[in-house]
Amino acid sequence: MPKESYLVGLIGSGIGPSLSPALHEREADRQGLRLVYRLIDIDTLGAPPEAVGDLVRAARDLGFDGLNITHPCKQLVIEHLDALAPQAEALGAVNTVVFEDGRAVGHNTDVTGFAASFARGLPDAPLERVVQLGAGGAGAAVAHAMLTLGAGRITVVDALPERAAALAGSLNRAFGEGRAAAAPPDRQAELLAHADGIVHATPTGMAAHPGLPLPAELLHCGLWVAEVVYRPLETDLLRTARALGCATLDGGGMAAFQAADAFRLFTGREPGAARMLADLTELAGALGARN
Amino acid sequence: MPKESYLVGLIGSGIGPSLSPALHEREADRQGLRLVYRLIDIDTLGAPPEAVGDLVRAARDLGFDGLNITHPCKQLVIEHLDALAPQAEALGAVNTVVFEDGRAVGHNTDVTGFAASFARGLPDAPLERVVQLGAGGAGAAVAHAMLTLGAGRITVVDALPERAAALAGSLNRAFGEGRAAAAPPDRQAELLAHADGIVHATPTGMAAHPGLPLPAELLHCGLWVAEVVYRPLETDLLRTARALGCATLDGGGMAAFQAADAFRLFTGREPGAARMLADLTELAGALGARN
Repeated sequence: MPKESYLVGLIGSGIGPSLSPALHEREADRQGLRLVYRLIDIDTLGAPPEAVGDLVRAARDLGFDGLNITHPCKQLVIEHLDALAPQAEALGAVNTVVFEDGRAVGHNTDVTGFAASFARGLPDAPLERVVQLGAGGAGAAVAHAMLTLGAGRITVVDALPERAAALAGSLNRAFGEGRAAAAPPDRQAELLAHADGIVHATPTGMAAHPGLPLPAELLHCGLWVAEVVYRPLETDLLRTARALGCATLDGGGMAAFQAADAFRLFTGREPGAARMLADLTELAGALGARN
Repeated sequence: MPKESYLVGLIGSGIGPSLSPALHEREADRQGLRLVYRLIDIDTLGAPPEAVGDLVRAARDLGFDGLNITHPCKQLVIEHLDALAPQAEALGAVNTVVFEDGRAVGHNTDVTGFAASFARGLPDAPLERVVQLGAGGAGAAVAHAMLTLGAGRITVVDALPERAAALAGSLNRAFGEGRAAAAPPDRQAELLAHADGIVHATPTGMAAHPGLPLPAELLHCGLWVAEVVYRPLETDLLRTARALGCATLDGGGMAAFQAADAFRLFTGREPGAARMLADLTELAGALGARN
């Protein structure tokens, strides 16, 4: 019986530092699978984001089992696929493509990965009134995850009011009117005074964008704080919230569990999600130490 | 230190039964390398042989480290490469492409593989007068190998006289006038009566083409017999020759050592050529038992 082999990759822009190759290849090693994960960076190739269709077709022809897709191709890839899983269709974004019998099927494990991370890390968090900072691609995925988890009402705050309104509108269409609203940053104080928790989905706190995504005085110990940023794992936001006594969730779980869910789709094998989270923590920690 | 990973494949027509994935992946496993070998069959893709250029470019873009190339693309691929190794340039055929710093370099390990197999299996064979049956692609590669090994004069016999003459001409240009000649099949008796040995490079003896490639009465115990066919390893020609007391060489060595030489080019690691030959023998034997 020959050892099974899997070929997967990631298409996106500026993906050189991605931890996905290590996360997938290490888990495959533990399961005795032969798996190679390749980075296909459109910047390195000098290709426009619209080239994602040709790259997906080429990957299928050359024997790839699947692909992860990231910025700026998560929406652009959709027209090149044969079918979408429900969560990808509802979100209008795909981060995982699986080739099956010549068909390309799109999934979104950002949604399932954040949901799994939240359920594991903040299992008892009240979800009646959630404030989310950031309405970009990551924000859309985690808002879908929070409403799927049963959040009563999510208020999306973004510096771009149209973007917040568009996301709230699509959430209301997908989950029912009244589940989501948009608000400008100057309403944050009022919203957070009465909220159960905050989901943070802007780039602030990453190595290149240090600092807090909101005035520190708006945080209080009655909030839980869930972070999407995972480089570094310990952001200024989490450090400040923890000092106040808030329950917190770092971004490592979403990063690890979206990979675990993709691994399951690629290989049909159940991933060791906790082991993958341990790897993510080790790898992101090593990166943080270098930065 | 992450385990190194390699991605390679084979482009050709009707390559489903190829043993190359198993040969390369098993050797990589023994060396602790993560290596995936994919079959890229132009028949399955519905692509013409001329598509090899696009497939080679796509493989480079998607992170392949190299490719093997087989029928009917070994000549067609050349115009799409950036450089050729000497043996590939002399032969005008490429069976191995290595991607290095974005450049695609062509090699021919059919030549080096047959030479290594011959030197190992028939080290003391006299090489003054060699008769070769078959002037196709495999024939061109093994004739180059025999002259590289120091054969005095090689006479190429082929049912297509123009093809034999063309190969003899190109051998004389590459190795010096008088090293090669062409002859029609009706001169076989006279040639073999005075020859040191026979290289057999036609498809006769394969499962789909059973039988002997020449009249049995032309064989005699003063000849060595080297075979290119390796499915089955034991052809009618080898069985007949061995019964006469001829020293013989089966086609397994060429098949294994061309893969070993390609493995060295792909990975930069020294292959366990003897272990790869043992694998080939096991795998080809298992196939033979099934046919």
